[in-house]
Amino acid sequence: MNEDVQQQMVDTVHAYVRALNASDLDAIAALYAEDATVEDPVGSPPKVGRVAIREFYAVSTSMQLVVALEGEIRVAKHACAFAFSVQVTHKGQLTTIRPIDVFEFDAAGRISSMRAYFGAPNIHN
Amino acid sequence: MNEDVQQQMVDTVHAYVRALNASDLDAIAALYAEDATVEDPVGSPPKVGRVAIREFYAVSTSMQLVVALEGEIRVAKHACAFAFSVQVTHKGQLTTIRPIDVFEFDAAGRISSMRAYFGAPNIHN
Repeated sequence: MNEDVQQQMVDTVHAYVRALNASDLDAIAALYAEDATVEDPVGSPPKVGRVAIREFYAVSTSMQLVVALEGEIRVAKHACAFAFSVQVTHKGQLTTIRPIDVFEFDAAGRISSMRAYFGAPNIHN
Repeated sequence: MNEDVQQQMVDTVHAYVRALNASDLDAIAALYAEDATVEDPVGSPPKVGRVAIREFYAVSTSMQLVVALEGEIRVAKHACAFAFSVQVTHKGQLTTIRPIDVFEFDAAGRISSMRAYFGAPNIHN
């Protein structure tokens, strides 16, 4: 496995976390390939293409998110997985969600597929 | 999402960790569907079917593994993801590997697909 490719995936995850915390939609969308898919949570209908993906994140980032990685980023061949927490405060109520995301990457190093694994047991009020 | 299905997935992950720590090949194989696939690490040729999967774990468990979950099990629809560490001592040298595994489940609650996300940056000597 090429170390540059590994580093690019790790850098993309860190850029993703920074962009979520900054509610920076352009920065988030730029990490995705034009024809990427987002299945968040896994089991829901995937969003297909950068326009649909940007709309999805516009909703998620309409509230201030506090996103933090949990543990190290797992780096496989053209794919990586990482655990993290998302804190959101809505009407004075703090909620913490703890997903694991899986990113697959295309040859250009953009995210071609994102899957977010979490469910009711991972949503803490 | 059905709470029984969620609980069954969580129970399966705990049974998997117990079976790895006990080097209990029968217990590991019993968690898998007959036609399951194992891609460990992601990017390597998948093992297909319970016989090939059992052979794969026979090699992995030929050394004593110490496996521990890291954080909560992420439970999605018919799938879950979990971070963990594997410690193995070979010729006096302790190595710690930190994968994230994704399990998909069939209707009977058996693992139909396992993918292990890790690479060189997740292997610590």
